[in-house]
Amino acid sequence: MSLERIRNSSLHEKIMSAEQASEFIKDGMTVGMSGFTRAGEAKAVPKALAERCKQHPIKINLMTGASLGNDLDKILTESGSLARRMPFQVDTTLRKAINNGEVMFIDQHLSEMVEQLRSHQLTRPDVAIIEAVAITEEGHIVPTTSVGNSASFAVFAEKVIVEINTLHSEKLEGLHDVYIPTYRPTRTPLPLVKVDDRIGSTAIPIPPEKIAGIVFTSTPDSYSTVSDPDEETASIARHLVSFLKEEVAEGRLPNNLGPLQAGIGNIANAVMMGLLDSDFEDLTMYSEVLQDSTFDLIDAGKMKFASGCSVILSERMNSKVFDNIEAYKDKLVLRPQEMSNHPELVRRLGIIAVNTALEFDLYGNVNSTHVCGTKMMNGIGGSGDFARNANMSIFVTKSIAKDGAISSVVPMVSHVDHTEHDVDILVTDQGLADLRGLAPRERAVRVIQNCAHPDYRHQLMDYFERACARGGHTPHLMEEAFSWHVALEQSGTMKR
Amino acid sequence: MSLERIRNSSLHEKIMSAEQASEFIKDGMTVGMSGFTRAGEAKAVPKALAERCKQHPIKINLMTGASLGNDLDKILTESGSLARRMPFQVDTTLRKAINNGEVMFIDQHLSEMVEQLRSHQLTRPDVAIIEAVAITEEGHIVPTTSVGNSASFAVFAEKVIVEINTLHSEKLEGLHDVYIPTYRPTRTPLPLVKVDDRIGSTAIPIPPEKIAGIVFTSTPDSYSTVSDPDEETASIARHLVSFLKEEVAEGRLPNNLGPLQAGIGNIANAVMMGLLDSDFEDLTMYSEVLQDSTFDLIDAGKMKFASGCSVILSERMNSKVFDNIEAYKDKLVLRPQEMSNHPELVRRLGIIAVNTALEFDLYGNVNSTHVCGTKMMNGIGGSGDFARNANMSIFVTKSIAKDGAISSVVPMVSHVDHTEHDVDILVTDQGLADLRGLAPRERAVRVIQNCAHPDYRHQLMDYFERACARGGHTPHLMEEAFSWHVALEQSGTMKR
Repeated sequence: MSLERIRNSSLHEKIMSAEQASEFIKDGMTVGMSGFTRAGEAKAVPKALAERCKQHPIKINLMTGASLGNDLDKILTESGSLARRMPFQVDTTLRKAINNGEVMFIDQHLSEMVEQLRSHQLTRPDVAIIEAVAITEEGHIVPTTSVGNSASFAVFAEKVIVEINTLHSEKLEGLHDVYIPTYRPTRTPLPLVKVDDRIGSTAIPIPPEKIAGIVFTSTPDSYSTVSDPDEETASIARHLVSFLKEEVAEGRLPNNLGPLQAGIGNIANAVMMGLLDSDFEDLTMYSEVLQDSTFDLIDAGKMKFASGCSVILSERMNSKVFDNIEAYKDKLVLRPQEMSNHPELVRRLGIIAVNTALEFDLYGNVNSTHVCGTKMMNGIGGSGDFARNANMSIFVTKSIAKDGAISSVVPMVSHVDHTEHDVDILVTDQGLADLRGLAPRERAVRVIQNCAHPDYRHQLMDYFERACARGGHTPHLMEEAFSWHVALEQSGTMKR
Repeated sequence: MSLERIRNSSLHEKIMSAEQASEFIKDGMTVGMSGFTRAGEAKAVPKALAERCKQHPIKINLMTGASLGNDLDKILTESGSLARRMPFQVDTTLRKAINNGEVMFIDQHLSEMVEQLRSHQLTRPDVAIIEAVAITEEGHIVPTTSVGNSASFAVFAEKVIVEINTLHSEKLEGLHDVYIPTYRPTRTPLPLVKVDDRIGSTAIPIPPEKIAGIVFTSTPDSYSTVSDPDEETASIARHLVSFLKEEVAEGRLPNNLGPLQAGIGNIANAVMMGLLDSDFEDLTMYSEVLQDSTFDLIDAGKMKFASGCSVILSERMNSKVFDNIEAYKDKLVLRPQEMSNHPELVRRLGIIAVNTALEFDLYGNVNSTHVCGTKMMNGIGGSGDFARNANMSIFVTKSIAKDGAISSVVPMVSHVDHTEHDVDILVTDQGLADLRGLAPRERAVRVIQNCAHPDYRHQLMDYFERACARGGHTPHLMEEAFSWHVALEQSGTMKR
């Protein structure tokens, strides 16, 4: 135990075991937990809760920042304690329970949940469980590797449990910028005008008497599972970098491109890696999650500042960054996800948003979440927060999946997360389609020619031509629009 | 001619005929015109252009605020001069040309077009044609009944043609608040924090030497065709008002509800009329178009301020308002559509957004634009600007259309303009479904029970139950998802 991490000594008496702390959570309660993209989640109390549930089953509504590490969503699902889960997840076991209708999953824009809590349109958490590196003299909570929704959860909850994780360096203090918008109708403009502006406090300000329990832990965050670029993702990166170069040459973008946002995962990471060998200078990020590529760019002197709401790294990069965190502190800030993803800021800053599509269609509609229209993968996450209000909204994906049995370019997406109105640029390993200022019929030709895999181009053009013959602003054959998805489910391939 | 309307006398020499002014427009040019929801459009020059095209065909790209009155879109379409049209229209003839693929229509969020012009992602207008009540001493343009995109068109265009419409009272001067955001990367917060804040100038500030021609006109705006509430729209209004009352009682909304936005048309107008007999006090609007209902509410002392970007009224209300405009001036402001619809302001102010759906589905996805997935009606307009960032996003529609042959509640919408993530409340004449915090399977039950017409409830439940049996977070039968639309096209009814 490291008592010096609790600098408000009146709180020392609140130290307890994870089991004891878990007793604050009763059947039917709403629990708000720290954790965003498997970084900085509360670790011990949810585990203890799952154990307790094996003997004494209870059901809770679980809210987080985004996904949890350390298999917590799996453990909680298996314990049967999840009635409702929001706003995001990435866990195989939980995903199954969601798709079976056993856990009610509410898939939300990540910037919006706390706004709905603030206006009491969603039930506020009874208990918040927040991972911290320390508690300050004032009793304020210093978060760890993510801020997520932790600040608002702590403010809104009746009781707060703090998990002090001694594996995280105390030097993380000062990295965070906790700003919470004021209540309406007297809300004022968010005062952030540059990616490196600091507008809040370095800890979560709550009255110390709300802290009901403090638990010490020493479990690390899960490491990122991001893999090195492969041939296709490197090709996507090349197409995008060469397009961005042209935008700079034409005077439509400055040479630092404007603040970058990149979604989580291999493709977005590969795209960011592609900037390493580019001529762009003084890059900045204003994103939700910061991955390996961010720090590769910082280390290479290509990127001068990165603002995020969580940091998730591979094992290699993790020690490199967190063992030398002081060296990064003037180039890095972590904010609440409401701020990292806020429409006001995304629009003001002019963000270049790069997010991953599961599939997209002839007219530029994007599916980010549902397999064959029904089965949830992870959730929309922050992609909508950025795509809608960005200066440029870019979606990337490989042109085919499952050895070519699936085309990522389809006649009509089986689920729409981002409408044609919110999508500017599409990129696959085959090429890039610039859809700005184009009508649907023009978009279709460009999407087929530039983005579709050659194996599917003819099939797509055949659909498009027959649909055009029938007419309409957005030509479709409604009885055939999902025939590719139906074929995939019935015969294992979209190929005719 | 009323020379005193051109207060900068150096501009008197720019007075010319509409025919002469139309000569500034050459083949292939992009033209930006005033006009929003059939209010305040330039009237004489586009007509002269259409006439000229009969002899000497040219093609132009036409940008406006939104829809045009006085049949201008019809006249221009028939003259064959429209190659491209954006971002909105409501004309039958143009609609046909769009659906036949003859005019390329770019259907955009109304707040976004000038942002894309500003960053050169869309081609800027060569010529702007702006209707005005006057030109000031400085050579600045005082708009008429709409601001729309006029200010940015005038700023970005090479040449500006001003149509001074002497039918509009000069007393309109002072009604407008023209604010244009600064360029990135030094953009600052929009300084508006209350609906009645004035943050800009009362005229469009351009160097007078950009004014290439001035044309005098005296054609009135087209009158609004809005009809009185009928049984169904009155019922929609009752359901919504009683829900809002409950929200106030529960402390989730203040008694003035927060700023209201209402889409154009009969249903939204009826909903606003429903507030006349409610207990709400001190209502305000922060909307794009102001219709009859706004002024009925002001006259009844229910509404204390309305901010819009255009005013379109019935013949009766038109003279009542514009003959007494001085009496309304302290309760009214007209802003550029970029400001009236801006995500930063919509989110900050906490708008209650009421927009009309063409159809919605079991899971809360909304189609605002496409008939049977292919044919464009009007366009998304500002509905997406508001729905995404509003405090509460409400969509209204009648439960059935065409004497019951069409159900507005369908298994899956044939086109998605607003995703489930952006829709909080659905209302039909049958009732209201509050979807906040619900998972898709929960939403479906509520939508069927509360919103669907009794004639279609069983059919919807049957689809939903068979889909659930197959599983998935958002249960669907992909091979059947559009069977209702296909049946409608083939047999004239969605009824089984």
